[in-house]
Amino acid sequence: MGIQKVFSYTLANETGVTSDQVRKDFSEFNIKGNKRGGYDINELLEIMEKIFHRNKDNNIILVGMGNLGLALSKYSKFVQRNMNIVATFDIDPFKQKVRSGIPVYSMSRLKEIIYRFKVKVAILAVSEISAQGVVDELIRHGITGIVNFAPVLLKVPEDVFINNVNLCDELESVIYYVHKQIQSDGYKNIEL
Amino acid sequence: MGIQKVFSYTLANETGVTSDQVRKDFSEFNIKGNKRGGYDINELLEIMEKIFHRNKDNNIILVGMGNLGLALSKYSKFVQRNMNIVATFDIDPFKQKVRSGIPVYSMSRLKEIIYRFKVKVAILAVSEISAQGVVDELIRHGITGIVNFAPVLLKVPEDVFINNVNLCDELESVIYYVHKQIQSDGYKNIEL
Repeated sequence: MGIQKVFSYTLANETGVTSDQVRKDFSEFNIKGNKRGGYDINELLEIMEKIFHRNKDNNIILVGMGNLGLALSKYSKFVQRNMNIVATFDIDPFKQKVRSGIPVYSMSRLKEIIYRFKVKVAILAVSEISAQGVVDELIRHGITGIVNFAPVLLKVPEDVFINNVNLCDELESVIYYVHKQIQSDGYKNIEL
Repeated sequence: MGIQKVFSYTLANETGVTSDQVRKDFSEFNIKGNKRGGYDINELLEIMEKIFHRNKDNNIILVGMGNLGLALSKYSKFVQRNMNIVATFDIDPFKQKVRSGIPVYSMSRLKEIIYRFKVKVAILAVSEISAQGVVDELIRHGITGIVNFAPVLLKVPEDVFINNVNLCDELESVIYYVHKQIQSDGYKNIEL
């Protein structure tokens, strides 16, 4: 749009945080703007790409090719940010008839593929019963970062980073707030 | 397992928060334990089910039957917590050949279905381009809570609760920490 500069309050407004937070986060990474001119957009984008390692390919594996795994393996946004799912795994590699274009391997080839593609990050979309066992195996083969979609808290060593995405909890928190809203509306307006 | 009481530190340990936090959260909802005996498990479960409205059916709709939408519509864990996706919608209701057992309606029937099933909560799995338009329509027909999977921040009125689940951000945060770890390991051990 021809804009070259952006201010912390513009970014704050668009992302739903305070402009103080924007400046604080930026200063954490030594990103400097100036009060009158704001931040240079091109410079900002370049630094951000470096921070999030978008400027180089990130090889990722996905374990568990159920419905969710299949959807994640087809999720086109990952590729746009240089996050490449190089391989997927399942105890039954022939389960998914609808393929995603990414190979589905049996679990026995986990070690080989992790080494070959120098993978550090895995997406976990297996059942809650098998999740801990799979995580232990992933860590043994050098995985140090996991996005876990299994609805269970996993035990991992301190140097492994795990990000739990619990779909039920996400939905339940919305239900909670909706009911809270209905109740407080009810108190405000007894006729309801 | 025959256990009848549970302590805040046990719950804290299992969920990855502090026991102070457990007690604080519980007292927010007037849940009382005692220092020696802990919390009564059955009582706790009953109260929790009420807080999260698991004791009654929650009717939910899902908009956008792409790969992710289809996977979410088949996600069996929702039903286990009484979160029932009663209908799904897509601009092309015939898109998904692999059906989930839940009807797929065209967008023109949104209003009718929301009213019929008294729906307050919607899951949004549409593209980022159409997300704002769909959200506006949902809110117009009475939806007050949304789990948004479209990677875009949506503008909603103050009394509408929106929970953004950005899959790219979830994955990217793991990549960020993994690289940070590699760097700090590198500093610690120059040989690497």
